[in-house]
Amino acid sequence: MKTIGLVTPGGDAPGMNAAIRAVTRIAHSRKLQVLGFERGWDGLLTNNFKRLTPRSVGGIIQLGGTMLHTLRCPKFEEKEGVRKAAETLALNKLDGLVVIGGDGSFRGALDLGRESGKLMVGIPATIDNDVFGTDETIGFDTAVNTAVKAIDQIRDTAISHERIFIVEVMGRKRGFLALDVGITVGAEVILVPENECKMSQVVEVLRENARKGKRTAIIVAAEGVGDTAAIAKEIEKHTGSEVRLSILGYAQRGGSPTARSRLLASLFAEKAVDLLGQEQGNKVVGLQNGAISNIDLKESCEKRKQIDSRLLKLAEMLSI
Amino acid sequence: MKTIGLVTPGGDAPGMNAAIRAVTRIAHSRKLQVLGFERGWDGLLTNNFKRLTPRSVGGIIQLGGTMLHTLRCPKFEEKEGVRKAAETLALNKLDGLVVIGGDGSFRGALDLGRESGKLMVGIPATIDNDVFGTDETIGFDTAVNTAVKAIDQIRDTAISHERIFIVEVMGRKRGFLALDVGITVGAEVILVPENECKMSQVVEVLRENARKGKRTAIIVAAEGVGDTAAIAKEIEKHTGSEVRLSILGYAQRGGSPTARSRLLASLFAEKAVDLLGQEQGNKVVGLQNGAISNIDLKESCEKRKQIDSRLLKLAEMLSI
Amino acid sequence: MKTIGLVTPGGDAPGMNAAIRAVTRIAHSRKLQVLGFERGWDGLLTNNFKRLTPRSVGGIIQLGGTMLHTLRCPKFEEKEGVRKAAETLALNKLDGLVVIGGDGSFRGALDLGRESGKLMVGIPATIDNDVFGTDETIGFDTAVNTAVKAIDQIRDTAISHERIFIVEVMGRKRGFLALDVGITVGAEVILVPENECKMSQVVEVLRENARKGKRTAIIVAAEGVGDTAAIAKEIEKHTGSEVRLSILGYAQRGGSPTARSRLLASLFAEKAVDLLGQEQGNKVVGLQNGAISNIDLKESCEKRKQIDSRLLKLAEMLSI
Amino acid sequence: MKTIGLVTPGGDAPGMNAAIRAVTRIAHSRKLQVLGFERGWDGLLTNNFKRLTPRSVGGIIQLGGTMLHTLRCPKFEEKEGVRKAAETLALNKLDGLVVIGGDGSFRGALDLGRESGKLMVGIPATIDNDVFGTDETIGFDTAVNTAVKAIDQIRDTAISHERIFIVEVMGRKRGFLALDVGITVGAEVILVPENECKMSQVVEVLRENARKGKRTAIIVAAEGVGDTAAIAKEIEKHTGSEVRLSILGYAQRGGSPTARSRLLASLFAEKAVDLLGQEQGNKVVGLQNGAISNIDLKESCEKRKQIDSRLLKLAEMLSI
Repeated sequence: MKTIGLVTPGGDAPGMNAAIRAVTRIAHSRKLQVLGFERGWDGLLTNNFKRLTPRSVGGIIQLGGTMLHTLRCPKFEEKEGVRKAAETLALNKLDGLVVIGGDGSFRGALDLGRESGKLMVGIPATIDNDVFGTDETIGFDTAVNTAVKAIDQIRDTAISHERIFIVEVMGRKRGFLALDVGITVGAEVILVPENECKMSQVVEVLRENARKGKRTAIIVAAEGVGDTAAIAKEIEKHTGSEVRLSILGYAQRGGSPTARSRLLASLFAEKAVDLLGQEQGNKVVGLQNGAISNIDLKESCEKRKQIDSRLLKLAEMLSI
Repeated sequence: MKTIGLVTPGGDAPGMNAAIRAVTRIAHSRKLQVLGFERGWDGLLTNNFKRLTPRSVGGIIQLGGTMLHTLRCPKFEEKEGVRKAAETLALNKLDGLVVIGGDGSFRGALDLGRESGKLMVGIPATIDNDVFGTDETIGFDTAVNTAVKAIDQIRDTAISHERIFIVEVMGRKRGFLALDVGITVGAEVILVPENECKMSQVVEVLRENARKGKRTAIIVAAEGVGDTAAIAKEIEKHTGSEVRLSILGYAQRGGSPTARSRLLASLFAEKAVDLLGQEQGNKVVGLQNGAISNIDLKESCEKRKQIDSRLLKLAEMLSI
Repeated sequence: MKTIGLVTPGGDAPGMNAAIRAVTRIAHSRKLQVLGFERGWDGLLTNNFKRLTPRSVGGIIQLGGTMLHTLRCPKFEEKEGVRKAAETLALNKLDGLVVIGGDGSFRGALDLGRESGKLMVGIPATIDNDVFGTDETIGFDTAVNTAVKAIDQIRDTAISHERIFIVEVMGRKRGFLALDVGITVGAEVILVPENECKMSQVVEVLRENARKGKRTAIIVAAEGVGDTAAIAKEIEKHTGSEVRLSILGYAQRGGSPTARSRLLASLFAEKAVDLLGQEQGNKVVGLQNGAISNIDLKESCEKRKQIDSRLLKLAEMLSI
Repeated sequence: MKTIGLVTPGGDAPGMNAAIRAVTRIAHSRKLQVLGFERGWDGLLTNNFKRLTPRSVGGIIQLGGTMLHTLRCPKFEEKEGVRKAAETLALNKLDGLVVIGGDGSFRGALDLGRESGKLMVGIPATIDNDVFGTDETIGFDTAVNTAVKAIDQIRDTAISHERIFIVEVMGRKRGFLALDVGITVGAEVILVPENECKMSQVVEVLRENARKGKRTAIIVAAEGVGDTAAIAKEIEKHTGSEVRLSILGYAQRGGSPTARSRLLASLFAEKAVDLLGQEQGNKVVGLQNGAISNIDLKESCEKRKQIDSRLLKLAEMLSI
C-alpha cells in the first residue's frame, strides 16, 4: 500500500481535526501518502481532494470542526453515486480509505467497500456516542463538557430564582449525552429516550424534592425524548411551578476538543493506520474495556449500542 | 445613618454577588450596617432579611446569580404591597435602600421611595444593558462573552458544513447584547429590534457573500426581533440554502462574572454607598464618559437608552 | 454498619467534592451515616467532624478543592498520632473510613487500619495520576485540560514570536500529567522523569524541526525532570535560539472539575460504599480495563504504576 | 492615499488579529490597499509583506497572537535600520503606516516617521495597559480575565489548604494588570511597583486577617515589584505560615481575545484608518473618557501613564 484516502462525511465533532492530523502523520511515518477528500462523499464523487502532509495538518489539533469540510450528499445514497466514488478510489490507486464519522458514515463506507473492494476503516467521531463497538467516540467528551459548563451557568439562575429548568441536550435518538451530562451536573431528573418518561414519576420526584426543601431543579432531557416545550408545560400544569426551557443547541457540536477527545483521536488514528498497514479492512476502531480495539464494520452498522442502565440508577441515587 | 438595606428584585445577572459583597464591605468600613432582604421585594413584604457582614459576603465575588435570591412579586405592584414594604423599612429603621437590578427594579424603587420617604439608590445590573443613565450594566460584559464563546463554537460547525446559522441572543426588547456580540464574533448580519429588519437586505447580503466565496454566515439576532424560527425559514426560502437556528438561552444569564463585571460592581457599589453617606437618594449610579457618575432615578426610569447607530455601521463595514 | 467516616488528608484535586457528595448520598440511601473529618488526619486527632447529609453536600459537585479542607499533619506520621486517630474511630463507633487522596493518604490509611482494625477504603484522587491499581485518578482529567488550555494560549505567543517554549507541568516525581498534556497539545518534545532526558536528542529534534520549517516548538516537561530553567538555558546554548520558560503552577490543582473527573468521583464513591457495605476493607477502588474495580490497599501503596511507553512513542510520531 | 502598511513589531497581545482584520476591511471599504509587513520591523527592513484583503483576514477575529508574526529587531534600533525601513515605505509608495503595539513599537514609529516623512498611526495593543493616552489597550481585558480565571482556580487550593498564596502576574514595570486582577479576584493584598511595598504592612494585614478568622490569603503581585520568591520567603519568616508562589506566565499573553478586546480592536482600527484618510499622522488612537480619541505620538511616547490610586484604596476597602 502506498496511498490511503481520508474523508469526514457526516456531522462534525470536536477532535476530527486531531484525527486527521494523527492519521496523516502516522501514515507519513510509515511511508504512506494521504489524500484528504473534501466535503464528505461529495469529494469522492468529484475527485476533489488535497494531499495531506505532516506540515499541512500542523496547528489543527486544537480546532473544532473538520478542515476537510462536510456536506450532505444525497447522490451517494444511490447506487450510481457509490459506483462513482469507487471509481475515484481506483483512479487514485487507493487501497484503503479511513472514514471518520458516525454510523451514517459507516454505512456509506460499508457500501463503498462492497462496490470498490477497497479496505475501509472507520474511526468513530460523533458527539452522540451512539456507535456500536466503542465505549466512547471522538467528540463525546467535549460535548459533555460544553453542556456541563452551560448547565453549571444555568444553575446560577435556577438557584437565584428557585425555579425548575429543563435543559435539552443533543444526542439524536439516543440518551448517551444526556445521561453523562445529567450525572455530572447533578441533575434532579434525567430524561432519555431509552427509558419511558412517565410524567407522574417526574412530578413525584419534584414534589418530594420540594418537601425536602430543594427549591430548584435541573431536568436534563435528551433531544430524542421529543417535544421538551410540551414536557415543560405538562410539568408546570402538574406542579404549579414555573418551568423554564433551554435548548443548548449547536454550541455542543463545536469548540476546541478536550484533551480526552484529542487523545482518543490520536489513538484511534494509530489503530486505523495499523489495520490498513496489515491489509485489514471493513473494520471500525474503538475503545473497549479501556483498550483500543476494532470490530467488524458491518456489525458496527447493524447492532445497537446499549445504554448503561446502572448509570441511570446511580444518577437517581445521587440526586436525592 | 446607621443601617441600610440591600435587595435584588429582578432577574439575576453575573456580578450581582460582587456588588452585594462590595456594598457590604464598603458600608462596613464606614460604620454602616447592611440588611440583605431575601427574594427581592418579597423580603420587604415579609421582613425577611439576613444581616450582611464582611465575613458573610466572603467567597462570593466569583459566583453568578444572587445570594439574596430573587422572586417575581406581583403583590409589590399593588399600592398595598408598596405600603407594606415601606413599613418594613421603617420597622428596621433603615434610612436608605440599595436596589440592584434593571429598570423594572428601579420603577419599584421609585414607588417605594415615594411611599416611604427613604433614600433609594439603584445599581444597574442586567445582562440586557438597557438602563438609561449608564453606558454599561453589571453582567453585560459577562453575557456578551458567554454568547461570543458559544458562537465561536457554533462557527466551527457552520464552517465545516458551509451553512448559514441564525443565533438568537437575549436582550429582551433591545439589541444592545446582540450588537456587541455580533460585532465581536464577526457576524455577517446583525438583527436588532431598533432597526427594521428588511428580509430583502438580509438576503442580498447573503447572496453577495456567496458571490465573494463566503460559504458560511452567522446571523446574530436579538430575541426582541421576534420569531427567529420564522426568519430562518424565510431566509431558506429566499436563498435556497439550509439555515440552522440556535437559541442561546439561559446560560447567558449565569456563570462566573468577567473581571469587568466584577470591577463595575465594585465601583458602582462604592458610589452607591457614597451617595447614601451624603444623604442623597433617588439616584441611579452609572458609567458615563468612562467615569462613575449618577443620574436621577425617575429620569432613568422614564428615558429610553439609545443604541449606538455608529456601531451598527461599523459592524456592516467589518463583515465584508 | 451504621456510620462511616470520610477524610481528605492530602493535596486537593478537582472532583474531591463530587466524591464527598457521592459517598454521602449513596451511603444515605443505604441507611449509613457519614461523618466528614475536617482538615485531613488532623480532624481524626482532634475529633473534629461534621455530619454530612444529602442536603449539606448539595451544590458542591462543580466546585474545586475539598469542602473538608486538608492540612499537613506531621503528628499522624508518628505512632502516637495513629493511635489517637484510631481512638477517634472507636469513640464515634465507626466501622469504616473512606480516605480520598493519593498514595501518601493511602499509606496513612494502611497504618490506621492496622492500628484500629477498622475497614479502610481508598478513593484515588490526585492530579498526578500516580496511584497503582487505577488507570485514572479523580482530578487528573481536569488538570490535563487546565494545562492544555494554558498551553494552547502559550502557543499563540510561541507562533507569533517563532520561539521555543518549555512549559513545566505538575506531576510530582512522575510523568503521567506531562505525557497526556504533551500528546494533546501536540508538543514537539515531552520530558518525563521515567525517560532519561538526553539533551543531544532534544537538540536534534529541534534542529530537524527547523530544517523542516517548524519555527516554533513547545516542550512539555514534568516537574519531576528537575531544573527546567537550567534545561532552558542548555537548549539556548545548543540551538542559539531564545527559549522561554513557563511554569504552570497551582492553577492545575484547582478549578471546576471536568465531567470526567465528576463521573469518576461518582463511580468510585459507589464502589467504596459498596465495599464497606460488604464489610470489605483495606481496598483501593480504581478504574481497570475500563471498569470500576478494586485492589488491595497494601499492594497499591507498595507497587509502582508504570507509564505507558507506547504513548511516548506515539507522541514522537505525532510531533513530526 | 492609495496604500497603507500595517505592522505588529512588539510582543503579541490578544486582539491584534482583530485589529489587523478591522484595519484591512475598513481600509478596503475606503478603497485603500493594505500591505501587512511580516515579523515586525524586520519585514520593513527586508520588504517582506503580504497583501491583506477582506478574505485573507477572515476567520482570525477570535485568534490570539498576530498573524503577521513579530520578532525582536535590533537592527531597527540603529539609524541605518530606520533608513532602510523608510526606503521600503517609499518603494511601495506607502503614505501611511499603522503600527499595532505598545510604547516600544511607538518609539520605533516616531523614529520612522521622522526619517520617512510618512504618516504614522499607532494602535495601542499590549496586555500591560501601560500606554499613555489611552485608558485601555487591546489585549488588557483578555489578560486580566486569563489571570482571574487562573487565580479563581488557585483559590480552590488556597482555601482547601488554608494557605497564603502569592500570584505573580505580568505587567512589565507597571502595576495596571496586577491592580485590576487583584480587585477582581478579591485579593487580600495587591503589590504594584508604583507603591512602595512595606513588608511590615503586608504582614500586619495578614495577621489582622488571621485574627478575623480568614485563614487563606491571595497576594497578587506585579512582576515589576521584583523577586516574588524572596517576598514569599520574607512573609513566611514573619508570619510563620507556609506561603506558596505561582507565576502565571505566558498564558496571559495568548488566548482567544475577550469580546471587549475584540471591540476595542475594531474601534481603534476604524479611528486609525479615519486619521490616515484625513492625512493625519503622528498619532496614537486611544480610549479617553469612554470615547475613541487620539493623541500625539510623541506625547504618548514621552509621558508616563498614571495608575489610579483610588482603585488601590478601593481594593483595600474591599479586602477586609
